[in-house]
Amino acid sequence: MEKRIDLNCDMGESFGAYTIGADKELMEHITSANIACGAHAGDPNVMDRTVSLAKEYGVGVGAHPGFPDIEGFGRRMIDFSADEIYRMVVHQIGSLQAFCAVHDVPMQHVKPHGALYNFAAKNWEAADAVARAVRDVNPDLILFGLAGSELLAAGRNAGLKVASEVFADRTYQPDGSLTPRGQDNALIERTEDAVEQVKQMVNDGQVRAVNGEMIDIMADTICVHGDGPHAAEFAEKLRAMLEEDGVEVCSVGE
Amino acid sequence: MEKRIDLNCDMGESFGAYTIGADKELMEHITSANIACGAHAGDPNVMDRTVSLAKEYGVGVGAHPGFPDIEGFGRRMIDFSADEIYRMVVHQIGSLQAFCAVHDVPMQHVKPHGALYNFAAKNWEAADAVARAVRDVNPDLILFGLAGSELLAAGRNAGLKVASEVFADRTYQPDGSLTPRGQDNALIERTEDAVEQVKQMVNDGQVRAVNGEMIDIMADTICVHGDGPHAAEFAEKLRAMLEEDGVEVCSVGE
Amino acid sequence: MEKRIDLNCDMGESFGAYTIGADKELMEHITSANIACGAHAGDPNVMDRTVSLAKEYGVGVGAHPGFPDIEGFGRRMIDFSADEIYRMVVHQIGSLQAFCAVHDVPMQHVKPHGALYNFAAKNWEAADAVARAVRDVNPDLILFGLAGSELLAAGRNAGLKVASEVFADRTYQPDGSLTPRGQDNALIERTEDAVEQVKQMVNDGQVRAVNGEMIDIMADTICVHGDGPHAAEFAEKLRAMLEEDGVEVCSVGE
Amino acid sequence: MEKRIDLNCDMGESFGAYTIGADKELMEHITSANIACGAHAGDPNVMDRTVSLAKEYGVGVGAHPGFPDIEGFGRRMIDFSADEIYRMVVHQIGSLQAFCAVHDVPMQHVKPHGALYNFAAKNWEAADAVARAVRDVNPDLILFGLAGSELLAAGRNAGLKVASEVFADRTYQPDGSLTPRGQDNALIERTEDAVEQVKQMVNDGQVRAVNGEMIDIMADTICVHGDGPHAAEFAEKLRAMLEEDGVEVCSVGE
Repeated sequence: MEKRIDLNCDMGESFGAYTIGADKELMEHITSANIACGAHAGDPNVMDRTVSLAKEYGVGVGAHPGFPDIEGFGRRMIDFSADEIYRMVVHQIGSLQAFCAVHDVPMQHVKPHGALYNFAAKNWEAADAVARAVRDVNPDLILFGLAGSELLAAGRNAGLKVASEVFADRTYQPDGSLTPRGQDNALIERTEDAVEQVKQMVNDGQVRAVNGEMIDIMADTICVHGDGPHAAEFAEKLRAMLEEDGVEVCSVGE
Repeated sequence: MEKRIDLNCDMGESFGAYTIGADKELMEHITSANIACGAHAGDPNVMDRTVSLAKEYGVGVGAHPGFPDIEGFGRRMIDFSADEIYRMVVHQIGSLQAFCAVHDVPMQHVKPHGALYNFAAKNWEAADAVARAVRDVNPDLILFGLAGSELLAAGRNAGLKVASEVFADRTYQPDGSLTPRGQDNALIERTEDAVEQVKQMVNDGQVRAVNGEMIDIMADTICVHGDGPHAAEFAEKLRAMLEEDGVEVCSVGE
Repeated sequence: MEKRIDLNCDMGESFGAYTIGADKELMEHITSANIACGAHAGDPNVMDRTVSLAKEYGVGVGAHPGFPDIEGFGRRMIDFSADEIYRMVVHQIGSLQAFCAVHDVPMQHVKPHGALYNFAAKNWEAADAVARAVRDVNPDLILFGLAGSELLAAGRNAGLKVASEVFADRTYQPDGSLTPRGQDNALIERTEDAVEQVKQMVNDGQVRAVNGEMIDIMADTICVHGDGPHAAEFAEKLRAMLEEDGVEVCSVGE
Repeated sequence: MEKRIDLNCDMGESFGAYTIGADKELMEHITSANIACGAHAGDPNVMDRTVSLAKEYGVGVGAHPGFPDIEGFGRRMIDFSADEIYRMVVHQIGSLQAFCAVHDVPMQHVKPHGALYNFAAKNWEAADAVARAVRDVNPDLILFGLAGSELLAAGRNAGLKVASEVFADRTYQPDGSLTPRGQDNALIERTEDAVEQVKQMVNDGQVRAVNGEMIDIMADTICVHGDGPHAAEFAEKLRAMLEEDGVEVCSVGE
């Protein structure tokens, strides 16, 4: 049976006169776009053109809700109750869904952003709030979450289809968590090593943790970073090497 | 044939710790609620509970998009292009629609707020942008606009069902426009006079302008103000007197 | 020697069309006003008129910096680094200081708001960041902080004059901390009991903790709440009963 | 007598994770920095490091107030009353002044940004509001405005020292106004032509209008654009060619 993998990337994170990310260059290499909804980044103009761009390239459209904090780019934890998280996710999915309606393209998935993603990975109440918000707005949406996270568990519990996300350029701990960014060995520097890690995750469902141990990991979608000077180049190379290896690169919705 | 009229009111304009409007008290007297979408007022928590409240009272739910300017409450004109207006309206309708989905209640209408309402009443490009945004998100939505305005014309031109809005407590000029608020005779102070004006508009399709002339006016829905100390009381009285007079008070969507 | 106490109150927390607090009614009873700086509440118009009002009533003007989060009213903790806290406090003090310049009234003090106040009470790095920000902008400013808090310690460490704040209507734990709001016995309901507690703190430097134990507490300034229907009435009564008791009620700057 | 000219540039317009402008590269070529105050651009972190950078390079520090509209980058006109303009300018100057205090560097000037700059150039009430705000916060500040504008007139009327601003790369109409950007001949494309125009303005107090006519123009400071790929290069070249020509390039405050 053929192996399949999705490549997702955060998109539409520009804001007014401010530009972040090489959205256009990346679109041809990825299969799912997580589009900011105007809360941690993005604005109605950016959302409109990003949905349009994703449609043009046949890339799956997803909502990328985050804490309402443009100044902090959604990376700062804000003390929201589970109810407040539920409602902010509803609000943000809805706003992107309207642009999907306008461009006549279905919404495929939801992936929380930044501090919300991290919080919902470990905190059940937050994870459950996100999952219920997604289901209540549209039960056909696929919920993206960190492999092994509470968010995936909450998604399944809510009856949603979920996609387990792995990272090409981050190292893993023996318990399956990501090595915190502060640590020396958190990042995989060489492209070849990153591709190798991805291949192993996709083909064998395993990854070598920092202590050398092989651990199980479910890889439905790979997070491709959209910033950095070589983002598009890395995405292109990763995709090419996966396809050479016989892996089908396609969106989770297909 | 029985005369019918809708009573609409701006709702959900509280924000965080700040409260505006006696939403709960008014809900039992009105038939359509224009719910702020978090741009000029409102936030996800307020939107959620206002949609829920409208559903509870059987009141038609509408989106109430405005310029993104909480500090100015959407009353300050901001120099947006027609394209920017189109996208901000799409965004805001979408965010409210998600709360409608969550509460399993259909969205009935869209009424622009404040400076956007006034600008779209007189400016064709803005009116057309609003109308197209509404149609492109959901062609079944009813567009509310000032009687005789460009917005109603643009709505019809876009193939939308429209509702012509009149004011109970504002006086009219011979050309059908509202007397500007700055002028002495802009407001109708006595409740009886306001009710009388409404009855004439509903029953005869006419209103007496400030110069004494009778002019034609189409009245599908009456704007009931939600602020002021006696808002709920006025709405109750207006409704009672209309019903006594044999007018059926019901939402435009019915 | 005569006992002296300051009565401080949060002021200028209205925002655009939204009103919070009975600022005018309270001004005649208090001696220090903590004026929001447009980050958690307030806007330039509100700041201007609140500084003017404080001047009119001879009330000491203070900056009331908080997390930049109008929607959350500064009550939600946001994960700021110490450097970010330092800079946000500098920014906010500066903006209020300009209104002091315009109205030719000196700034007297700084009191952090909400989540920032609570965080700086317990976290040394945050407390130190606030204290350094105050000192670096203007070393003559008096720093208000919870009695026994890290903030007061940091203020003294930075060479600032500090004012130890106590609460009339909150109960105390044996370790001098406030009983958390969630607990049943957190609030003192009867005005007489609140006044009694204040008198004891002012006259004896002691308060009876919830377990009945008498503990030491330094009371330089009393926090008078500005919201609630009876805020002005309570402030008036408290002040009258303190003055009857021979306590001089005056601002900390005098 | 030696000719003198100031080179000013908009600075500190980055925001959170978003970067705009090559501030560091430009600082060594300019003499006055207009630093955004967190309303149309900038945030406390950016303000802090921009004031620090200007101090490091010996560049005059100015406040660059604009409409509170990050999403629109202060380029969209918002319908503010003169009183609202006055207060927003007070607020923004104050917030930057605090960073000047922290870094122990004097504030030199104020230059309004974008839509506020353009509005205050033509509208007397707005110009007067800006000028009074500057004077009331600090009468020693120098007000920058478009050559021949209402803003300069209002500044002089308020008793302020003013600096008349000219543009190197924009063409002029016979009445001294800038050719609107929409027109074909609005911009001077070749660096040599721009430098030539500046030399003539500085040395002769004249500029050749688009119709060939020579008109009088007062040039105290030249606006150097901070965006665009060759901003720093242009500033360097302009400065070098002016200095070769015997013009002293120094800040208006010297």
